[in-house]
Amino acid sequence: MKRIAESTVRRLSAYLRFLEEAAAHGHQTISSGELAAQGGTTSAQVRKDLSFFGSFGKRGLGYSVAALSASLRDILGLGRTWNVVIVGAGKIGSALAQYQGFRERGFTVVAVYDADPALVGRTLDGVVVRDQRELETDIARCKPHIALIAVPAEAAQALVDRVVKAGVRAILNFAPSPISVPPHVTLRSVNMALELEILSYALVNAPD
Amino acid sequence: MKRIAESTVRRLSAYLRFLEEAAAHGHQTISSGELAAQGGTTSAQVRKDLSFFGSFGKRGLGYSVAALSASLRDILGLGRTWNVVIVGAGKIGSALAQYQGFRERGFTVVAVYDADPALVGRTLDGVVVRDQRELETDIARCKPHIALIAVPAEAAQALVDRVVKAGVRAILNFAPSPISVPPHVTLRSVNMALELEILSYALVNAPD
Repeated sequence: MKRIAESTVRRLSAYLRFLEEAAAHGHQTISSGELAAQGGTTSAQVRKDLSFFGSFGKRGLGYSVAALSASLRDILGLGRTWNVVIVGAGKIGSALAQYQGFRERGFTVVAVYDADPALVGRTLDGVVVRDQRELETDIARCKPHIALIAVPAEAAQALVDRVVKAGVRAILNFAPSPISVPPHVTLRSVNMALELEILSYALVNAPD
Repeated sequence: MKRIAESTVRRLSAYLRFLEEAAAHGHQTISSGELAAQGGTTSAQVRKDLSFFGSFGKRGLGYSVAALSASLRDILGLGRTWNVVIVGAGKIGSALAQYQGFRERGFTVVAVYDADPALVGRTLDGVVVRDQRELETDIARCKPHIALIAVPAEAAQALVDRVVKAGVRAILNFAPSPISVPPHVTLRSVNMALELEILSYALVNAPD
């Protein structure tokens, strides 16, 4: 894998969001200064980020909104559809299954799984909750690209191991527990409890 | 504010979760090695982290699960209740309002706000959705500690400005847009679209 700093992907993603807004407002070109303001960085950094993927801008004219958006979408792997499975149909899993923001960016939820018989068979925005025992056979058949893990902390590692063994190579973990994966798998975590703890720590230790 | 690295809070939080599990399994003491494995670090780092807040362990005996848990809860500001308001009652806001994990850690959702008249007046797990126009008067009266921002990207900064002006000093932003706050305010962001983009970037750029 071509190594790239996470902070670069973060900025490219911010540039893309800004370009999409600019397109919606009818703008045809954009300057590196405007992109810099959006990405929380400098014009020099913008030019460096974009030159890394080939030269896009014309001196004095700025970047073409349409061309740069298309290139960024390709670079970020957004020029295509990714199939996503969600493991866990509780509050978080259900919300994720129905989250419009995923679909808008090409992430399609193809299945949701749960171990609770009371949840299996329910429909979440057109996607049926399937029995967690079907996970391996389903993954072998449908080959989803990404698994979202939305199960209790104590169940998370075992389920990650199962989806990884079945062939999934990208995981977004919402369980509040540290997870390990083999080197060929990309793991990201969203830990809302931790975010709140960082806030509460800041509040407790704030002056006055 | 006493400065502490975010990575330290992250480890303390992981230690606490492990201690709570250990307590649930009836363990009375725990070694720095066990804590290290959970926090993804070394025994030396654990001793350093904990010594920063005073000495807790007894050589050869390990740490008392009960005493260390209590200290960590105090350090992280979890020994009390934090009042939380949620701005935005869409899919994400509703899920957050009903998320058990918050309540279990002492974060109480006191109000949810939305600008959409169709949502105002609805009840989410016992909390009524209030009109967003009431935000300033409500914050002045109830003085919530933390605001969760779950509105569309283009509305986020204006709403953050409003809650900050009204006196909120800790913000957890779920809108996929960069937000700025004055230095006395602590801001954390959870950007699920970005996490997925990092995964899709990794998938596109993976070998084979």
